[in-house]
Amino acid sequence: MRYSIVVFPSSKVQEAANSYRKRFDPAYALIPPYIRIKEPFEWAEADLPELVNHLEEVAQSTERFATRFHRVSSFHPTTNVLYFAIQNKEPFEKLHEKIAQKCVNQKETYAYVPHLTIGRDLSDDELRDLTGQLSMAKIDLETEVDRFSLVYELEDGIWSVYQTFLLK
Amino acid sequence: MRYSIVVFPSSKVQEAANSYRKRFDPAYALIPPYIRIKEPFEWAEADLPELVNHLEEVAQSTERFATRFHRVSSFHPTTNVLYFAIQNKEPFEKLHEKIAQKCVNQKETYAYVPHLTIGRDLSDDELRDLTGQLSMAKIDLETEVDRFSLVYELEDGIWSVYQTFLLK
Repeated sequence: MRYSIVVFPSSKVQEAANSYRKRFDPAYALIPPYIRIKEPFEWAEADLPELVNHLEEVAQSTERFATRFHRVSSFHPTTNVLYFAIQNKEPFEKLHEKIAQKCVNQKETYAYVPHLTIGRDLSDDELRDLTGQLSMAKIDLETEVDRFSLVYELEDGIWSVYQTFLLK
Repeated sequence: MRYSIVVFPSSKVQEAANSYRKRFDPAYALIPPYIRIKEPFEWAEADLPELVNHLEEVAQSTERFATRFHRVSSFHPTTNVLYFAIQNKEPFEKLHEKIAQKCVNQKETYAYVPHLTIGRDLSDDELRDLTGQLSMAKIDLETEVDRFSLVYELEDGIWSVYQTFLLK
């Protein structure tokens, strides 16, 4: 089964993100807005207890933190993804490292940059228009990160939450 | 904010349910397949700790259990909902009572009958056709229930998981 580890931000941030995702993100109906901590990875269901134990340890050794989204940015030309940029990336990077280094150490496709996707699979033209418009938009959203979630993918591409892990 | 309490069954059962929901359930893209424990209810975000504490107590005093879906049924003529019927309803009823009687004691619209919705808002004709076809189908799905989830509704009708609670 394919798993991933994500942070779902506050309902306010989710609603702000979904106002864009509804139009620009084909994954809108597959998962609520999220900040990815670990890229999707294959894991045997039989080995879930090992993974869950590791994630519990990580959660218990990580302090909750506040985070702020301060602008819209894109990964162009690497990928045509549009996202809410995160001002204080460090706590996400630490969480990513803790989780990735031990149990789930498959290599990531891209260097880890925490972000909240609001659009993807955009054409170059669409992306240029949108980044032009949205670079003017005043983005100032805050969320407290006090938990992360282990999610898994159903065969139709929909992601379901397996378990939430509360930070200290 | 509007909350609800649900059980997400195993991935196998979710995939079986989604093969019907994709066609017959307008909520397909809003939430993965679930067995409702508590109807949606209003709850102040500020009072979440009280609710979470109560749910933790309920989880810690409830043994995990196995459940079996053995046929397709409908609530017609009360509502045109099509669902996987649950053979052993008792553990769900107990969970429902424990949660409903103390903290979240708003009245339910319908008497509590645990079920897994696979179709809703069907016309009488559609429902008759489907129940005719599906009453022949051999349904024999099992899932272990070892957790339930507190979920909340975003303004676009999508449900997001706030926290999972593990049974004993």
